[in-house]
Amino acid sequence: QRVRGFISGVAGASPARTALLAFALVILVFTALLSLPFASRDGRVTAFHDALFVAASSVTVTGLTPVNTAEQWSFAGQLVILVAIQIGGLGILSMAALLTLAVSKRLGVRSKLITQEGMSTGRIGEVGSLLRVVVATTLLFELALAVVLIPRFTAHAGSLAEGVWHGIFYSVSAFNNAGFTIHADGLGSLLQDPWIVWTITAGVFAGALGFPVVMVLLKQRWKWSRWNLHTKLTVTTTVALVLGGALLIGLFEWSNPATLGQYGVGERIQYSLFGSVMTRSGGFAVYDVNEQYAETLLLTDALMFVGGGSASTAGGIKVTTLAVMFLAIVAEARGDREVTTHGRTIAPGSLRVAISVLALGATLVLVSTMALVAISGESLQRPLFEVLSAFGTCGLTTGLTAELPPAGKYVLTALMFAGRVGTITFASALALRQRRNLFRYPEERPIIG
Amino acid sequence: QRVRGFISGVAGASPARTALLAFALVILVFTALLSLPFASRDGRVTAFHDALFVAASSVTVTGLTPVNTAEQWSFAGQLVILVAIQIGGLGILSMAALLTLAVSKRLGVRSKLITQEGMSTGRIGEVGSLLRVVVATTLLFELALAVVLIPRFTAHAGSLAEGVWHGIFYSVSAFNNAGFTIHADGLGSLLQDPWIVWTITAGVFAGALGFPVVMVLLKQRWKWSRWNLHTKLTVTTTVALVLGGALLIGLFEWSNPATLGQYGVGERIQYSLFGSVMTRSGGFAVYDVNEQYAETLLLTDALMFVGGGSASTAGGIKVTTLAVMFLAIVAEARGDREVTTHGRTIAPGSLRVAISVLALGATLVLVSTMALVAISGESLQRPLFEVLSAFGTCGLTTGLTAELPPAGKYVLTALMFAGRVGTITFASALALRQRRNLFRYPEERPIIG
Ligand SMILES: [K+]
Ligand SMILES: [K+]
Repeated sequence: QRVRGFISGVAGASPARTALLAFALVILVFTALLSLPFASRDGRVTAFHDALFVAASSVTVTGLTPVNTAEQWSFAGQLVILVAIQIGGLGILSMAALLTLAVSKRLGVRSKLITQEGMSTGRIGEVGSLLRVVVATTLLFELALAVVLIPRFTAHAGSLAEGVWHGIFYSVSAFNNAGFTIHADGLGSLLQDPWIVWTITAGVFAGALGFPVVMVLLKQRWKWSRWNLHTKLTVTTTVALVLGGALLIGLFEWSNPATLGQYGVGERIQYSLFGSVMTRSGGFAVYDVNEQYAETLLLTDALMFVGGGSASTAGGIKVTTLAVMFLAIVAEARGDREVTTHGRTIAPGSLRVAISVLALGATLVLVSTMALVAISGESLQRPLFEVLSAFGTCGLTTGLTAELPPAGKYVLTALMFAGRVGTITFASALALRQRRNLFRYPEERPIIG
Repeated sequence: QRVRGFISGVAGASPARTALLAFALVILVFTALLSLPFASRDGRVTAFHDALFVAASSVTVTGLTPVNTAEQWSFAGQLVILVAIQIGGLGILSMAALLTLAVSKRLGVRSKLITQEGMSTGRIGEVGSLLRVVVATTLLFELALAVVLIPRFTAHAGSLAEGVWHGIFYSVSAFNNAGFTIHADGLGSLLQDPWIVWTITAGVFAGALGFPVVMVLLKQRWKWSRWNLHTKLTVTTTVALVLGGALLIGLFEWSNPATLGQYGVGERIQYSLFGSVMTRSGGFAVYDVNEQYAETLLLTDALMFVGGGSASTAGGIKVTTLAVMFLAIVAEARGDREVTTHGRTIAPGSLRVAISVLALGATLVLVSTMALVAISGESLQRPLFEVLSAFGTCGLTTGLTAELPPAGKYVLTALMFAGRVGTITFASALALRQRRNLFRYPEERPIIG
């Protein structure tokens, strides 16, 4: 009761700052744990910049890593990473849920908003029960994934203990969109197993939709007309991006002998779809990212920048931001004065938030890429990819992360942190401060474009 | 009188389509002229894709060219290019002025808008006199530049005839932000002359402000309080970008022996400023673009994407679009419900146009870069630079343009055309169609970011 009151009080006072501090604190704790000798396979202390990087990468569920997870860490170390992913993932979802609650309280439209989100007031009226719903839903999804994965991994590893461990790790890694692998050469050869491919695809897909959407889907199922606007936009945009991305990846890489070209037609289609889902933001890879053509890398860059659903473990500017931008263009082209879709008007405030999120995201990516290009001395392509992978908390890698000097690792660490916490806190800070001006300035239209 | 009525009628009916057709027609005429044997130095027919590219590059005042202007074209051919630049530049300014007029007429706020723009109704009430003002202003500026440049070029060339020709060509090329050079090795060594550097910098700077701003400045001079919002935003953003860009270019390249490092401190500062102004969108270069560090190229990419002032010969998404985005972020961060600056509220419609221009520009760049990367088989860095140079009608080049097969040249040609005409027609088409909805949908706020 006391803890609940405290959390509610702090979060109500400055939820943005709370989220930021909480994430930083959790990352530091895991950095300390990973630095200790017990965590590394060779029993030695891990360098600070590497421990910090992996801790940040786990807690922000990014999946980039400067060291090979299978070779660097002991079983205990890998368990620490698993716990960090789970805490990070739950933390993100809870924080998002709490902030939604805080926002709705502050704006005095709490009950209305909660109804809109498709959740009955009774169940999540309290902070505690809200958190319970988040935890229960997450564990339920992960359990479902593990049930399919454990037998398959047991068959591949030839040992039940290893199969269970692999099944649990990859279930958590997939649903939280973490993208960490505990096989030295990545999932690579295991992805020849369609059961594993499709289960991981499904887990990543569901995890990237976001808590508000998952809740609506669980409650309303496929009754389209009863979905709220956020769910409709998220689902349609996600499906469009997944199918569009898969189509283009398939088109670009169809006869690249180092990537899709080495497989049969069925597998090419399967891996195109897998690759497309992984950009939003699973981070598992079937083949070496560097072997893809430059146009595929650029496409992946764009998809990683967009990321997944709001209040999900995915990163990026979020699919609803993209949807709102697209709807704004359609409205302008049709000459409408308002941006409308599915029988609803998008609030002008949402457009302002969208443009802010987009502009801040682009600025962050630009500045980080400049820094990384300067530090690594590389041409644009690989640093940009790595930066977008960190910003989108995606975890796909060209291998540059492992090659960087400590300075470069700190840049990516900061970017993962900013990409993860920044969007939540920024968006929520905006939503919370609706100061009214006491007077209005006259309107004026500068010439745009 | 008849002509005036016809122009006014057509432009009133569909100004966007008119602009598009006019530009296409003019480009085709100059393609035909440049294809003829008299235009080339060796007296042979020039390949269609090269003639089309140079014609498009001249008329859209971009300055990219797949052939060396000094070596490929005869004096007559260079004269054709000069005329194409002048017609293109005047066409852009006139079109912008006409569209401003058409928009103001259609919206029934004509006199108000014209007053806002700082021009007395009497002088540009008619289409004809508006065009006369545009032509007179342009020629006046070019004359002023030529007066300074001709003596310098005469001194360098050692011949009055050549000096006059060079002076006129570079005056037109600079004020129209065309960036074409008629020296085989570019302006390079001539830029050791501070008179030439600063005159060209001034010409490009003035040309990139845009007609509406230049008119206000000519009328109101430095009476800041009497400037309209568009002028204030354009001037402050341009100055900020120029100084910020120069600072970063200087910082990045200070000790690069292939670029700034080879000069003295004074020249390093001078060339940093020159380089920064040229990205918006003059296109002249002191040293080989490829010799710059990757971080400088990326900075240049960003500056070229932004481009210059609205209704100017510069390209890109325009500085006011950037300013409005920045102001939107500031407003969000402060919790204001309205985007305000300099005692004015930015109309929500302007925000919608800004987000549309930005999103369309980014999409165009993304798709074109994918195409160019696929066609050239190059890594991302050079194709992206070339695409942004074409989109921003900037004309700085990594040399990739000259290396591309015809398919790549067509991509860049289309991009120059779209980058130039697209923004005008798009923005004006939007401004003209203010269809009112008869009913309103209820508002709903999807979660953004
Ligand atoms: K990830
Ligand atoms: K130019």
